[in-house]
Formats: sequence, structure tokens, C-alpha cells
Amino acid sequence: MSTTSPASDEPTRLANIISTMFAGQAGRSHRLSNGETVQLLVGADAQDDCAVFRMDGSQEIVLGSDYVRGSKFILYELGYLDDYDVGYYLAMANFSDIAAMGAQPIALLSVIRYPKTMPDEQFAQVLRGINDACELVGAPNVGGDIGTAERLILSASAMGVVESGGSLLRSGARPGDRLCVTGPTGIAAAAQKYFTKPHIADGAISAAAEKVLLNSWRRPQALVGQGRCLSTSGLATSCQDSSDGLKAGIESIAARSGVGFIVEEKALPVLDVVREVAELSNIEVTSLILGDSVDFQLIFTVPEEYLEELKKIFEGHGYTFHDIGFATELPDIVLRSSDGATRELPGAAWRHANPDLP
Amino acid sequence: MSTTSPASDEPTRLANIISTMFAGQAGRSHRLSNGETVQLLVGADAQDDCAVFRMDGSQEIVLGSDYVRGSKFILYELGYLDDYDVGYYLAMANFSDIAAMGAQPIALLSVIRYPKTMPDEQFAQVLRGINDACELVGAPNVGGDIGTAERLILSASAMGVVESGGSLLRSGARPGDRLCVTGPTGIAAAAQKYFTKPHIADGAISAAAEKVLLNSWRRPQALVGQGRCLSTSGLATSCQDSSDGLKAGIESIAARSGVGFIVEEKALPVLDVVREVAELSNIEVTSLILGDSVDFQLIFTVPEEYLEELKKIFEGHGYTFHDIGFATELPDIVLRSSDGATRELPGAAWRHANPDLP
Repeated sequence: MSTTSPASDEPTRLANIISTMFAGQAGRSHRLSNGETVQLLVGADAQDDCAVFRMDGSQEIVLGSDYVRGSKFILYELGYLDDYDVGYYLAMANFSDIAAMGAQPIALLSVIRYPKTMPDEQFAQVLRGINDACELVGAPNVGGDIGTAERLILSASAMGVVESGGSLLRSGARPGDRLCVTGPTGIAAAAQKYFTKPHIADGAISAAAEKVLLNSWRRPQALVGQGRCLSTSGLATSCQDSSDGLKAGIESIAARSGVGFIVEEKALPVLDVVREVAELSNIEVTSLILGDSVDFQLIFTVPEEYLEELKKIFEGHGYTFHDIGFATELPDIVLRSSDGATRELPGAAWRHANPDLP
Repeated sequence: MSTTSPASDEPTRLANIISTMFAGQAGRSHRLSNGETVQLLVGADAQDDCAVFRMDGSQEIVLGSDYVRGSKFILYELGYLDDYDVGYYLAMANFSDIAAMGAQPIALLSVIRYPKTMPDEQFAQVLRGINDACELVGAPNVGGDIGTAERLILSASAMGVVESGGSLLRSGARPGDRLCVTGPTGIAAAAQKYFTKPHIADGAISAAAEKVLLNSWRRPQALVGQGRCLSTSGLATSCQDSSDGLKAGIESIAARSGVGFIVEEKALPVLDVVREVAELSNIEVTSLILGDSVDFQLIFTVPEEYLEELKKIFEGHGYTFHDIGFATELPDIVLRSSDGATRELPGAAWRHANPDLP
């Protein structure tokens, strides 16, 4: 972190950093699968009160907010993440909520409050991280709020658009539906365990494995393409992202849909590095996979008869998913091991045990 | 502030406070003057990743964010505002940006991060304040983010909808246009001066006058109706709210429109209480009126030939506005006194002199 660059006030940062970084946004547009369009009329570069979009047809707009706790972001505090990384994370965490609705992200609004002493270069790094994540999903950062605060505070809202009737809710799962997840979970929690626990030495795992752990925080990916497949196929009955943990996600779909789930332990996707960290930490790997790990996979349900069709659609786009169980009429949610024994899902519940997660 | 009520974790607050307070949102709709509708399909009560709206026609969506600094809110810290008040303020500050675009607010997303020890009752008060402000403008609180932080942090995003082509930007003022403001400014700054300066004793002004000062912070109003008049009339050429101060607002319209302004000193609306506080503080009243006072009036321009027509439209809805000057080709912005002398606009510039304002 350079401290030689100036720490300008808000109007100066608007003029020097924001204006140049966000020039020429107006006119960007998205076309949905039914031909309907949404066009950005007024973006961040206009420095108006709000961003403006023009819609046609009868699209659905989705809107969500997510907060990232800047300096209480533990891996940031420890120096494993830099200012660019937390900006990137803020945007992707917000886009993940849009992806989980099956929507195409069209805009981000960012709230960036910083200590008065934060140098312009550091502030610009936060914005660059946000901006690059926005570019990757094709949704510009159209404005928000900047200004000072006691410490770095990052919050954002994201907006997306879906064909009418296409939003993926948590409430549509039916008994018999297959329960699926787009990829392995537990990586973000393993990263926290590995880099913050003094009894695990740096270097206990390979450099490549360490990179996998760090990248779960440095370069999280909102699974927009996968969400769009789920939505436009019309086959998924429910969906949410795994940012509160796999267990919390499954519980939430169960609660909103009025079903239970049997989760097959052997079907859970698991990375070797997560297994390694579980062993080093003396904890059950399943509790890392299912607990409150802030990954951004999509958890969804699909009627059994459409499972193969959905797999083919995913493969056609270069995506995969894992079939990890099924919905039941009984409201219980259980983990079933290979020998047929069932038990409650292990893993820390959402925020109870770990209130300092973002 | 009661400390006897429990301080629950996030899932519990979601279940006990949020779910009951936000039940039954789905189905609410707005109809625009051209007959187009927007309907809320998925609100906060659905506890999904995002809120969902169904649009028809070719409406414009406007989207903005505003942050309120919770415990650094000076009148809150001093006990003049309670938790309900800051919640109310958060929502109205965000709706004011929507009003300034000429839009009908349709939703708020709130980010509420609180110290772990904050009792449920206090948390519920913040939400009640937000909710009541939302009810007043007819836009539900459709979700957002809650969770813990080191201190109370409040941020929000608001969304609004306008007839296609109806958004009021800052960039449309033309030389000769009249410059107008919906009402007196400087009240919020006068309140800060009066209640935070030890050399001014409480009771130096009447109780009624004190109430006017406090209400500028406790019950700010987003001027949605006035903004809608400006937009649907098609007569206004630019608009923004005065939340950065009247001077900053005028400067911003000037910069975005490529014009200057002559502001007539004697035409500036001023409340007696602002004059009293200026005298008590030994400062020029014009600097309170024009400086960085966080009021929520609308500043707008209208071609001279439509001024009377717009006045009639306003009067038809029970509103008024003040004609305080006009746009010039020369880029200078000056205050003209009754004797014809001109000078720069007095008053603290936006955030330079007062970085601790929200």
C-alpha cells in the first residue's frame, strides 16, 4: 500500500478517479433470449442522482444488496488480500445473488466509505477491483456513494434482468426433485482455517494448494452463465447461491419450498485441499463442505425427469454440476452415508458460530 | 434505548422481526401516467437472493445508493435522534435521490450492520423507522443485508420508475432557464450549529423553532410528488436534490449542463429560525442557506416561458416553489444582491469544510 499518493476529498476523487474510470457508460445494452432489451441511459459518468435504464417488453428486474466488512475482512487484515481484491470480492458477492436468481447482471451500485487518510491510489485500487469484476460479468458500476468513515466500509447493490417468469426462487422445490450444486464448497472456510490458525504453519500444503485457497477469496466468481442456463432452460425448480454455506442454502430452499432433503455424503464434491485442511485442523471434512463457508456455487433443484436434459444444456456451455441428493415430503434434512445411515447435516450453522464472517 | 431485550443472531432476527414486519409484500404495483405498470413479484418476505419486479411497456428504472453513518451521525450520538429516526432518515435520503430523477420510488434495499450487543428492540426500531418512511412514499423495503459490525452502519439503495424519456437529469439546463428551489434550505446545517455548539445554549430560541430544526433530521421528506410534477409536466430541463447543499447542487447542474447561474439573494427562501441561528453563531445567513446543509429540497430549471404553467401545476397539487435566478451562457455562478453587486456564492463547499457530515 503506497502512502505517498494524496488523500483527496470526495469532489476531487470524483473528478480525478471516478470520472475517468467510468467514462462512456451510456448506451450499453443487454438483449434477453426473448428479444427484449434493457439499455443504460445514464451511468456513473453522468454523476446524476441515480442511474437510469430503459426497459422494453415485460422483463423482470432483480435487485439485491451485500455488504463486505472492509477492514474486518480477516484475510485482508492479515495482508493476504489487498484493496483490489476486496473491491473485486464486493462486486462478485453481489453478482452472485443476481446469478442465483437466473438473471443477467446489468449494473452495480457501490458504497465506498474510507478513512480520511486513505491515499487516492489505494482508493483507486478498490474501484479497479470493483470495475474489473463488473467488466467480467458485463454489468457496469453505475454509481453509488463515496465518502469518509472511521474505517473502510464496502457495500453494494446489484441489479439484473430476466425474461418474464424466469426468476429462480428458493420456493419451487417439490418432493422427488434432485438436489444439485455447481461445484465444490468449503474452500473459503478452509482458507480461513489455514491462514488464520497459528497451529497450522504456512507451507503445510503445496504452494498450488495455497493458491486455490486464496483465490476463493481473491477471485470469487459469480456463476452468471450457469444461472442463465438454469433460468432459460425452464427446468430448475429452485436456486440460491452457497454464500451462507451449503447447509444453510439447502435449509433455506427446504424452508421456502416446504420440503426436506436427503443429501448423499459420497456425492458431495470435495477438493483435495479442503480434505488436507480438514486433516490439519482435526475436523471432519464434511463440516467444512457443508458449514458456513462463503463460496459462490449455485444450489438448485430439478425434477428427476429433466436431470439429463439439464446436464446436456450445461455441457453445451462448458459447465457441469453435481447431483447430491433429492427432496422429500418429510421436512427433515439429513446426510446419508454409503452404508445407509443418516444423521443431521454437520457443519457450523449460518452466522451462529462464526459471527465475524463477512 | 432498552438493553433488556435480547440481542439475537441474524437468522433469529430474520425469523422474528423481519419476517413479521415484511409479510405480504408481493403483488403491490404502481401504474404510471402512460398506463404502464410495475408489479412486485418477490419482496423481502420471500427471503430470496433478490427482490423481483415485473415491468411492462418501456419504462425507465432509476437506481441510487446513499449511506448514513450510524453512530457518527452527530445528532444521533448526542441523543437528539433515536434509532427510529436514523432508520427513517436512511430511507428518506435514498428516496430523495429517486424524487430528484422525477421517478416514483418502488423499492428500498437496506443494509443494516449492528454491534453484536445491540438489543433486538433497538434493531427493530431502526427497521420501523425505515418501514414507516417506505410506507409514506409507497415503496416497500424489499430486502438488503443485515448482520453484525463493529458499530451501527446504515446504507441503502432505492429504485424508482419513470415513464420512458421522463427521467430528470442534471444536464439539461439551457441559458435563460429559470433556476428554482422547492423550499427553504439551511435548516439541517442550522440544526447542527445550534445543537452541537457549546456556546449556544439550549433554549436560546423558542421550543417551536427548536422543533423545526430537529425535524429537518428526524422527519426529512423526499419530495416525490414535486419530482413527479416536474417529470410528468415535461417542463423541467434539469433537477437534483439539495442534499449536498444548495450551492453544490447549483454548481453540479451548471457543470453538467455547461451553463452558469445568477442567483438573486433576495429571492432565496429563508426560515426565521435559520436567521436566528446565523445571528447566534455570528455567521452570514446566506452561507447557511447555500452551504453544505443536508436538506432535501429539489433544485431545478425550467424555461422562462413555462414558469407560470409549472407554477399552476404545482399549485394544483398543493405545492409551491421559489424562482431564485436564471442560467447564463457565461460559466460563472454568482450571487446578486438587491443593489446589483455580484460575488461568489458563500457557504461551505460540499464535504471540504465539513467531512463529518453524513
